[in-house]
Amino acid sequence: MPSETVRFAAIGLNHAHIYGQTNLLVRAGAELVAFYAAEPDLAAQYGRTYPQATQVSDPRAILEDPSIHLIISAAIPDERAPLGIAAMRHGKDYMADKPGFTTLAQLDEARRVQAETGRIYSICFSERFENAATVRAGELARSGAIGTVVQTIGLGPHRVNLTARPPWFFQRSRFGGIINDIGSHQADQFLFFTGATRADVVTAQVANYRHPQYPEFDDFGDVLLRGVTPEGLEVSGYIRVDWHTPDGLGTWGDGRLIVLGTEGYIEVRKNIDIAGRPGGNHLFLVDQKGTHCVDCSDVALPYGPSLVYDILHRTETAMPQEHCFLASELVLRAEAAAHRLK
Amino acid sequence: MPSETVRFAAIGLNHAHIYGQTNLLVRAGAELVAFYAAEPDLAAQYGRTYPQATQVSDPRAILEDPSIHLIISAAIPDERAPLGIAAMRHGKDYMADKPGFTTLAQLDEARRVQAETGRIYSICFSERFENAATVRAGELARSGAIGTVVQTIGLGPHRVNLTARPPWFFQRSRFGGIINDIGSHQADQFLFFTGATRADVVTAQVANYRHPQYPEFDDFGDVLLRGVTPEGLEVSGYIRVDWHTPDGLGTWGDGRLIVLGTEGYIEVRKNIDIAGRPGGNHLFLVDQKGTHCVDCSDVALPYGPSLVYDILHRTETAMPQEHCFLASELVLRAEAAAHRLK
Repeated sequence: MPSETVRFAAIGLNHAHIYGQTNLLVRAGAELVAFYAAEPDLAAQYGRTYPQATQVSDPRAILEDPSIHLIISAAIPDERAPLGIAAMRHGKDYMADKPGFTTLAQLDEARRVQAETGRIYSICFSERFENAATVRAGELARSGAIGTVVQTIGLGPHRVNLTARPPWFFQRSRFGGIINDIGSHQADQFLFFTGATRADVVTAQVANYRHPQYPEFDDFGDVLLRGVTPEGLEVSGYIRVDWHTPDGLGTWGDGRLIVLGTEGYIEVRKNIDIAGRPGGNHLFLVDQKGTHCVDCSDVALPYGPSLVYDILHRTETAMPQEHCFLASELVLRAEAAAHRLK
Repeated sequence: MPSETVRFAAIGLNHAHIYGQTNLLVRAGAELVAFYAAEPDLAAQYGRTYPQATQVSDPRAILEDPSIHLIISAAIPDERAPLGIAAMRHGKDYMADKPGFTTLAQLDEARRVQAETGRIYSICFSERFENAATVRAGELARSGAIGTVVQTIGLGPHRVNLTARPPWFFQRSRFGGIINDIGSHQADQFLFFTGATRADVVTAQVANYRHPQYPEFDDFGDVLLRGVTPEGLEVSGYIRVDWHTPDGLGTWGDGRLIVLGTEGYIEVRKNIDIAGRPGGNHLFLVDQKGTHCVDCSDVALPYGPSLVYDILHRTETAMPQEHCFLASELVLRAEAAAHRLK
């Protein structure tokens, strides 16, 4: 079907990330045709934003529509994998908001069904795919600008916005733990920037320092990952995530990525350069020649067009399927192994 | 002897840090009276810089001079502890360049002799004591500016300057490993900023990615520390050190400290704000009110005056003795436990 347009539909609108997921596909020329949400308020907002989409009253109307190629979802995290598995079993590709899973059992089943069906199970790791500075950093790292990448540090602080959160946000079985949730971005970036194709969790820990009223919630987590590249180089990644972003920060979180190479390093300040340059998408490159602030204003975000291409041509250009599963596996294993700080 | 001036002498000039150690004492009103070095070139340079000091041909002339209160040293690292132990046994206080030890056996003996003699064994953790932004960050953290401190991240990248290094720089038995050497600053800061009085190494790793011609050398190391405060709070610290600083950086290393509190965070860019503000000593505070670039130009560095006060009054205001030993123990234990990356 190379000449067709990708037709897609949304099921599950529980996180506002669904708007980013929708928009990146619309920008890539895909056609939004339908949506379903159990919650009338979430459905109404989505319907107002995308009047071209038909609201359906049963998700089966989407799953069983043979004209739809792709289902996207920002459902409550524990519902994402069952939906993705159903989508693949109905012959459709799938793109979930992160985290894509809440248990290793879900991941195992998704891996099995993906292999059986040959469909795409993608996760929108927006802190890489939708951040121009991170995309540019990837291009630089892959071009050898900092020599061989040996380590990444990923910081994912977030503002908790307690009053705006639904009950599931604090229920461990539903969000899968802080490392699984917001750390999955960093696991994705560790694998992408180092090029590791195998990796393990060395150690992990979580804490709930400030939110005792939510005993299943974590507001701090960190992980040390170790990986091996296809060339046999052992590389490592440190990840820290937290929900302690103070109200004084001008954005939802001071996300950072530091990529260490043998010939230089890159720092991405994703959302803010604290008390520095305005806006987001700050990329700093230090190499043998100097210190560079790299302009990212003309960077194209490739995930949407690449995913559309993959759907039409049955390729893996947007993200190798196994990369998506391995990044998810690392954070699920980290959650399972995490020491709880008192 | 509260009315006396502290008289001090230097033994061992193998690292240029000896100039910082000397200067901070001179600024604090202490009197440099003598020095010894086995190497004529190092002695000549020091003698030209400090013509007030008498060069002696045998370190015993300093150890056995009852008018000298304090011996300072930037000897080769494995010689620092034996000298400090001898100094304490001669009734003198001691200040070493970091690292203060290269083996746990040295540390054990120093602890024992320090307890027996009641003398001071101090280590000049210059990345805290001699960095105005870090001093100011400590004042802010201790005043509660970011709530309860729960974690620190310390990055200590350094330029390797291969051609300027003496042979001992590459001999493991002499420098004690990368984590012990340049990581000791970060262990000090972890304990200081979190207030932990007990701590353990969770995991550590080292690598020699780029210097195969020096098989005993490490150019990468990291450590995860976990501590407990006197209030029983479990806190953690991540440390990364490396010798990969590229020639394009305008200083010897982009040292960073990130202090995470429950109500805000602090970032110190110790030596450079890459592609940003000129100079060193950059302190950024993010709290509930806003994002602040904190001016550190008028910060007084307290280590020298405090150490002089401690010598005269037998107090521990510059650094608790056990803090000095515990910071050193953590990096020595990390070296002993470190996984070697291939």
